[in-house]
Amino acid sequence: MNNFTYFNPTRLVFGKGSIAQLNELVPAEQSVLLTYGGGSIKKNGVYEQVKAALGDREVIEFGGIEANPRYETLMQAVKIVREKQARFLLAVGGGSVLDGTKFIAAAGRFEGEPWDILSKNAEVTSAIPVGSVLTLPATGSEANTFAVISRNSTQEKLAFGSPHCFPKFSILDPTTTFSLPPKQVRNGIVDTFVHVMEQYATFPSDAPLQDAQAEAIISVLIEQGPFTLKNPTDYNARANFMWAATQALNGVISAGVPQDWATHMIGHEMTAFYGLDHAETLAIVLPQLLRHQKPRKQLKLAQLARRVWDVSDLETAKAADAAIDHIEAFFHSLNMPTRLAEYKIDPADAAKKIGDRFAQRNSKFGDHADLTEKEAREILLKC
Amino acid sequence: MNNFTYFNPTRLVFGKGSIAQLNELVPAEQSVLLTYGGGSIKKNGVYEQVKAALGDREVIEFGGIEANPRYETLMQAVKIVREKQARFLLAVGGGSVLDGTKFIAAAGRFEGEPWDILSKNAEVTSAIPVGSVLTLPATGSEANTFAVISRNSTQEKLAFGSPHCFPKFSILDPTTTFSLPPKQVRNGIVDTFVHVMEQYATFPSDAPLQDAQAEAIISVLIEQGPFTLKNPTDYNARANFMWAATQALNGVISAGVPQDWATHMIGHEMTAFYGLDHAETLAIVLPQLLRHQKPRKQLKLAQLARRVWDVSDLETAKAADAAIDHIEAFFHSLNMPTRLAEYKIDPADAAKKIGDRFAQRNSKFGDHADLTEKEAREILLKC
Repeated sequence: MNNFTYFNPTRLVFGKGSIAQLNELVPAEQSVLLTYGGGSIKKNGVYEQVKAALGDREVIEFGGIEANPRYETLMQAVKIVREKQARFLLAVGGGSVLDGTKFIAAAGRFEGEPWDILSKNAEVTSAIPVGSVLTLPATGSEANTFAVISRNSTQEKLAFGSPHCFPKFSILDPTTTFSLPPKQVRNGIVDTFVHVMEQYATFPSDAPLQDAQAEAIISVLIEQGPFTLKNPTDYNARANFMWAATQALNGVISAGVPQDWATHMIGHEMTAFYGLDHAETLAIVLPQLLRHQKPRKQLKLAQLARRVWDVSDLETAKAADAAIDHIEAFFHSLNMPTRLAEYKIDPADAAKKIGDRFAQRNSKFGDHADLTEKEAREILLKC
Repeated sequence: MNNFTYFNPTRLVFGKGSIAQLNELVPAEQSVLLTYGGGSIKKNGVYEQVKAALGDREVIEFGGIEANPRYETLMQAVKIVREKQARFLLAVGGGSVLDGTKFIAAAGRFEGEPWDILSKNAEVTSAIPVGSVLTLPATGSEANTFAVISRNSTQEKLAFGSPHCFPKFSILDPTTTFSLPPKQVRNGIVDTFVHVMEQYATFPSDAPLQDAQAEAIISVLIEQGPFTLKNPTDYNARANFMWAATQALNGVISAGVPQDWATHMIGHEMTAFYGLDHAETLAIVLPQLLRHQKPRKQLKLAQLARRVWDVSDLETAKAADAAIDHIEAFFHSLNMPTRLAEYKIDPADAAKKIGDRFAQRNSKFGDHADLTEKEAREILLKC
């Protein structure tokens, strides 16, 4: 096992009716910037619950944070935060709203050009406190330090993370997800699944607990994912999926083990160039990346096949193949495409655009930190 | 799934060489009370590493915290803390030292009779900050709010917990455990195992992720426990066991599910009356408690048998029996007795003494909160 530090101070308040606890969780007598997305919270009752719980606090609203939240949009909020001296940010929505709000929190106190936080890894030394009400299980943003932000003018999608950006609390009420469109639930299941794979499908590292904890999440997604997609108001199924999404990216399963994130690296570019949903890109890249990297990942893939899909009596390479086929079939069972052609995108075009960008950045990535534009092109041609 | 709040702000610094990080973790320019146990840390090099990392901080030492830490001992430390105005407590040792130090932290700021914290659940509203260097994986005390304290004069062993008692950090260096006597490693494995069972072997609650996370820890203990007992200096095995012990009682596997703790309730009294090691009492009580409560626990026990020991093709009741037999055999494989007679204690005497105490306290316990002195007597007669 590798040395590691595990630290996660976010308070998670889970269950039906828990939005009412905002009154105790949000500091009293401070102005609050309430951030949200396209307005669905005003249709499903979440907005009313939040406003009721906040009582007579001074609340400034900033709606319209889009999927793949845009730097241009978020900088408008930063301006408001500075002008109105908001002391607390309350994000109500899914991972995009949370990610965007983390960036507002960091940029609101950043001296200098905030884009540097993303483009130059400029250090974040402070952030406005953030809390969240999560309405879409997927990104794990509710219990980690990370955020991914897009910039339209340059077709870039970049990530940052800072311990100052841990939410102080996140409220997870599964009933707020009952009205989600099936496509978003599907995306959330796939996103969660790929988060686990990024931390699991690496070279082996003799960390059986982390392995088994990752397999636990994958098993739950396989068992509960298709069910909750078909039965959106089944409370326990939705709760189990919601909790699995948080556990997938809160640092537990990555403690002391290698991580990959090559699928995300390539997927982010696919969103930046073609506008595909984040999860859609992951479902395309993951199977082909695993096939391409099979010689280096087959021990873990074979273990997954044996433990999760009861694949038996096969040699390692064949069991690994079976795991990849099962993963792709699982995505299909959720009505999730796994090929660029299904979006009318030419793999050769993607290989060129994304490969050129990695070449320009001289990117190195993957669990061995040795994949380059060359491998990205090879993988993308198979997508 | 039940509603829950999960909050665990302890920073865990894991791996070989990590004691050196104390210099960044312990506040500078504050007087530190360094607490420890019987002095093994002065023989295995841990003390020297700690002192070197603390540099020129003012350090007051308080050694001699015994297994099942005693109120009488700890109150001596409370007196020192108050006199010397220690601002930070650094516990170096196993669960007893950590538990004792948490009590010192709470009692040091408590107005009134500190025994009330244990005997009357008096509220702890503040505590001196605590950090720890863990040298014995077992109790999970390094990442939770709990402490169990004994009082010799009254033969009592009582627990308390307060969010103010979360360690600010815990350092877990597996190499510090290489020199542990095999009996203590055995005890730590059994203690960890029973912690998981207290949170798992209950009535079912449709929480498959928590179930699988608990099964993950049990599988690791079964696989790594006997190996690390025989190979004390195998780093990865010791690291895997150490991390499993922390994960067993940090609140993750109990989130949103029923809990039992009847084995601990009865076991604590066994230690109080007869002086058995904590883990020794658990190994005696658990199998008989599971047999007694089988009708209400058999669904989870059968699940465990099927998933962990590959028991197949059996009806639920028989699979549950198999699980209990496997558990008892696992304890035996660690050279851990499972009967009172092996300690020359008469079960009838234990049933009378412990049953009388529960009757006097009108105790109700277990995952249905309906076990009483009657069931305790029945279980103990089988021990």
